[in-house]
Amino acid sequence: MKHINIVETGPRDGFQSVSCHMIPTETKLEIIGAIVDAGVKRIQCTSFVSPKAIPQMHDAAEVTRTLLEKYPDVSFFALVPNFRGAEAAVQAGLDSVSTVISLSASHNMNNVRRTHQQSFDELERILDAFPELKVEIDVATAFGCPFEGQMDVGRLVEFVGKLERIGVRDFNICDTIGVAYPVQVRQAFSELMEAFPEAHFSAHIHDTRNMGILNSYEAIRCGVDTVQTTLGGLGGCPFAPGATGNTATEDLVYLLDREGYETGIDQRALLRAAKLQVEKIPGNYSGHHILIQERPA
Amino acid sequence: MKHINIVETGPRDGFQSVSCHMIPTETKLEIIGAIVDAGVKRIQCTSFVSPKAIPQMHDAAEVTRTLLEKYPDVSFFALVPNFRGAEAAVQAGLDSVSTVISLSASHNMNNVRRTHQQSFDELERILDAFPELKVEIDVATAFGCPFEGQMDVGRLVEFVGKLERIGVRDFNICDTIGVAYPVQVRQAFSELMEAFPEAHFSAHIHDTRNMGILNSYEAIRCGVDTVQTTLGGLGGCPFAPGATGNTATEDLVYLLDREGYETGIDQRALLRAAKLQVEKIPGNYSGHHILIQERPA
Repeated sequence: MKHINIVETGPRDGFQSVSCHMIPTETKLEIIGAIVDAGVKRIQCTSFVSPKAIPQMHDAAEVTRTLLEKYPDVSFFALVPNFRGAEAAVQAGLDSVSTVISLSASHNMNNVRRTHQQSFDELERILDAFPELKVEIDVATAFGCPFEGQMDVGRLVEFVGKLERIGVRDFNICDTIGVAYPVQVRQAFSELMEAFPEAHFSAHIHDTRNMGILNSYEAIRCGVDTVQTTLGGLGGCPFAPGATGNTATEDLVYLLDREGYETGIDQRALLRAAKLQVEKIPGNYSGHHILIQERPA
Repeated sequence: MKHINIVETGPRDGFQSVSCHMIPTETKLEIIGAIVDAGVKRIQCTSFVSPKAIPQMHDAAEVTRTLLEKYPDVSFFALVPNFRGAEAAVQAGLDSVSTVISLSASHNMNNVRRTHQQSFDELERILDAFPELKVEIDVATAFGCPFEGQMDVGRLVEFVGKLERIGVRDFNICDTIGVAYPVQVRQAFSELMEAFPEAHFSAHIHDTRNMGILNSYEAIRCGVDTVQTTLGGLGGCPFAPGATGNTATEDLVYLLDREGYETGIDQRALLRAAKLQVEKIPGNYSGHHILIQERPA
């Protein structure tokens, strides 16, 4: 059985989408604890970002320190938008972070207020200052952009090449707005894996157009061994009411179980975690298993 | 470009799931009209069933007669649970019906209160009485049953063989409770198409576990040219609150457009129809496109 690494990004990508109320720190820790109990081994636990930009992430250091102490066998990492964030993540004890650069220059400017060159410079500053830190890149809008439309695979490969030359080895190829389709996903990952055999690629696919499961699985079927998901599919843009979020962890794990892949995750425990989360945190949920009752089949 | 036949079954499978209020006949006709305007060429418009069993379908004859007169170029058909239903469908002017038999004997007993043999007998009665009528079979619980669990593909092939010997040529292979997975879907359709080259198979996949799009597309990728869907993904069991329904027509058409298939359907017009339906009919919707705002990409 082939092993697939499920990386839970809900405590960052899901929680940050909840804008109507503050999630208590203890609730975050309770839910992350339930995710750990289900057997998830790598979790993006928070984002070291200005609380003015995203108030929901104000407790990044506290969440991180508590988790590192409580679950030494789990691999935690955080999103850092800049050097300052990386510094804070290292101070909190993390040895692994991700930072985001959009393939679309206009989305990059909107999202992190930087040109591509400014993002590359900031990245180099982080790599230089923390040579021991594992730094992954979230390549945002890798398939499509709200401003520039569909992204060309050739452009993606060239962009990843630039980042690889700077020294990045781990790439999360993100369908930020959920517009990818299987032919495109297959072409992108096939070309990336062929062009950069030393690099590692994971898929991070939003479910906006109901293709989260399909595209995540398409990536797996063409050789990707790591997929980022969020519990319950929590996520989406707080400014597009009703917009659905990420590929749901428990739905993808269910599929992989049925299809003969191995994830090391207990589906029932994961479903309990998802139900706990839905109970405690109202938000945009894209997952289906959290909606259905337990049935024999 | 390969053509895929999209069969809209929402006016039967979707509308019948709405149990909390009666949908006015004119609303049904308005929505079906919008579906026709989008270019859908085959529509399951109602069910000729006892109004005591499903009150929502009380206007079957009126709906059918109006549609046949108004849209002579569209192929309409209805579900009939028994001989009496077939008779009523023919009286209303239809030349095509579907009737349902579950692969699982226990589900068949629960659903239509008949043994398999009783269902076969009723089917033969219909075929004998109406030799000109096109009769399709919905093979319910083809992949899994709420009482008997996962269904074996060998059992499905044997069952279809029995029906073929009775004289059936058109089969809708139904994942009634949404438990199928791609390996199973591929195996089922491949074996069926190989075993019965004279028969025609279509896929009817519920989205309960978030695999409606994935499994419908898997069927298409292994050669199936006809898929049944419902507008908005309306459907699901009224007794399982929150349970999601069918594969959403507009989501599948969007996928097929992107993937280079041809459906003859105008995606924007279809989306307008879906939004109209959501506005007029509260229910269990599984589709995503009806939830998102129009975006450039």
